[in-house]
Amino acid sequence: TKNCRITLLPGDGIGPEIMAVAVDVLNVVGKRFDISFDFQTALIGGAAIDETGEPLPAATLDTCRNSDAVLLAAIGGYKWDSLPSDKRPEAGLLGLRAGLELFANLRPAKIIPQLIDASSLKREVVEGVDIMVVRELTGGIYFGKPKGIFATETGERRGVNTMVYNESEIDRIGRVAFETAQKRGKKLCSVDKANVLDVSQLWREKMTKLGSEYPEIELSHLYVDNAAMQLVRAPKQFDTIVTGNLFGDILSDAAAMLTGSIGMLPSASLGSSGPGVYEPVHGSAPDIAGQDKANPLAQVLSAAMMLRYGLDQPDAADLIENGVLQVLQQGDRTGDIMSPGMNLLGCRAMGDALIQI
Amino acid sequence: TKNCRITLLPGDGIGPEIMAVAVDVLNVVGKRFDISFDFQTALIGGAAIDETGEPLPAATLDTCRNSDAVLLAAIGGYKWDSLPSDKRPEAGLLGLRAGLELFANLRPAKIIPQLIDASSLKREVVEGVDIMVVRELTGGIYFGKPKGIFATETGERRGVNTMVYNESEIDRIGRVAFETAQKRGKKLCSVDKANVLDVSQLWREKMTKLGSEYPEIELSHLYVDNAAMQLVRAPKQFDTIVTGNLFGDILSDAAAMLTGSIGMLPSASLGSSGPGVYEPVHGSAPDIAGQDKANPLAQVLSAAMMLRYGLDQPDAADLIENGVLQVLQQGDRTGDIMSPGMNLLGCRAMGDALIQI
Ligand SMILES: CC(C)[C@H](C(=O)O)[C@@H](O)C(=O)O
Ligand SMILES: CC(C)[C@H](C(=O)O)[C@@H](O)C(=O)O
Repeated sequence: TKNCRITLLPGDGIGPEIMAVAVDVLNVVGKRFDISFDFQTALIGGAAIDETGEPLPAATLDTCRNSDAVLLAAIGGYKWDSLPSDKRPEAGLLGLRAGLELFANLRPAKIIPQLIDASSLKREVVEGVDIMVVRELTGGIYFGKPKGIFATETGERRGVNTMVYNESEIDRIGRVAFETAQKRGKKLCSVDKANVLDVSQLWREKMTKLGSEYPEIELSHLYVDNAAMQLVRAPKQFDTIVTGNLFGDILSDAAAMLTGSIGMLPSASLGSSGPGVYEPVHGSAPDIAGQDKANPLAQVLSAAMMLRYGLDQPDAADLIENGVLQVLQQGDRTGDIMSPGMNLLGCRAMGDALIQI
Repeated sequence: TKNCRITLLPGDGIGPEIMAVAVDVLNVVGKRFDISFDFQTALIGGAAIDETGEPLPAATLDTCRNSDAVLLAAIGGYKWDSLPSDKRPEAGLLGLRAGLELFANLRPAKIIPQLIDASSLKREVVEGVDIMVVRELTGGIYFGKPKGIFATETGERRGVNTMVYNESEIDRIGRVAFETAQKRGKKLCSVDKANVLDVSQLWREKMTKLGSEYPEIELSHLYVDNAAMQLVRAPKQFDTIVTGNLFGDILSDAAAMLTGSIGMLPSASLGSSGPGVYEPVHGSAPDIAGQDKANPLAQVLSAAMMLRYGLDQPDAADLIENGVLQVLQQGDRTGDIMSPGMNLLGCRAMGDALIQI
């Protein structure tokens, strides 16, 4: 028996509902593959604020550090939107990324054939789209200093953030990206704004240099504005994309939306050692929380990514991923991906359908 | 007779070809409306680098300052891509924006019914899309200091750029945006990343405050990642968008691409006084330069925007815009917008077709 300590961070909104489904699925898969999961649940986001006053209590970070992997659901909600920014649910997420040094965020945007009609793009444009966005997650303008709102000499205020990357930060995310591309289509597109930003010039220089160590990878560069256009125009041209924290935030969401079913997309955030965090791309959907309406499949697929990237259990991951395709194939749908003639299920029932398979 | 001094900046690539068409069209329209154009041609971008070593010679900025409006075609090309960034064609464009204090960039993304099939999005998703992106153009991370590539104590280099906005900068672009929305659908969406960036918190605070001065405008806020998703998912929800320099660069290009015909889109860059700059959204297309293949219509529509916003000649602008719709209606197409059964024309012939109308 393989023992795995997993920290569960259900968070806010629909988080607890979709997490419950993922746990059930993991337990079933664990039995099949002789993996025993030791689950610890901890507080983050709004739930943590309500209970402790902090979006990321020290105890949560400790629990995460002492586990093999962290499964996160979703954080945030209207309730906490008026708090100062360092006390908001989002600060908990940023603190978790920084605290675990999760510098590499992998965001797949893959068309699921059964759901292709949900895309706002034409079928022939998105058919077969399979993009992996590798986003730098602990640097750039998200963490750069100076930052703040300052008084100026003229009495008016000035808001400031700093986009900064060191050579070593670029190198380590670059290596993850090249190695990711290696296991995929062997094409890597680095996205920057080197025609305007100095930090992007360093980024492009380092990526180009790294490219010479990976001669079998076809490296290209795009400016971020052009990348946004190309994702809309012809997304099939992309295989793996690597970019900084802010550009990655924007482009991975745009890429996710090409699929038309953001309720289906998982992500992984990885460091160089220590546990990774696995979470759906979608948010906490406070408007449908507690109503058994949420789609648990992105959470379940995040658990599959955890098995694949964090626990070295590719067969268990395959089983889950195939199971998800099968429930879709037999016509089961939650509300967000419903279409005429399909079976509308709640969150819980979708989990049960999956376990049946 | 109304006299208008116009500086022409043909620039690089297809620039001179499409500019020639726009000048012909302006001369014809001028006769009709009793406007006499006094055209001065000046150097910018790669063409200026080749002749003077500078992407924006002082003489060019002087000529622009002494005119009523500036019509720009396109800059840049592979030839100058290896120059240091402050000597590249792009630096000429940024210098022109800064030199003329063109803080407001208006970028319409409007579906042209005759070309709707060119969009990569489904017809029902893009039918009727009519978005105006108001992008701040002389501030933010494009111009913020400190900027550069610096040596650190550990010997590795660090790239730095600074995203900065003063209250007054936010106010003045905000006013342009509210007033633009007033003349359109009375809906304004302000885009920022206030859940992470301090500069965005100030942006959101000021926009919200300004909103109370425009009670008839429906103001909303979106985070930039969500805005990118919403543009792909359901672009019809947008009327006017206001955002900073970098987010505007990315989102206006994504919005433009929704239409499927970026060769048709004009833009205007305006200051609080002095001449504005009018230019197509597309680039210099060096691969087809000099082959009479370029689509001159975005340049022609930029001339129409110049008549409308810079020279107070809305009737002349209407005439041009209707003329463009008419040539499309009669089936005339350049290569970039060609579809089966239409008449394929070169750049020059497209201009002639337009003048015939
Ligand atoms: C919630 C927010 C801080 C976060 C980010 O911007 O990174 C989110 O948008 C994401 O992409 O995970
Ligand atoms: C050429 C480049 C400097 C410019 C920008 O980033 O502003 C262009 O992309 C644009 O949008 O006009």
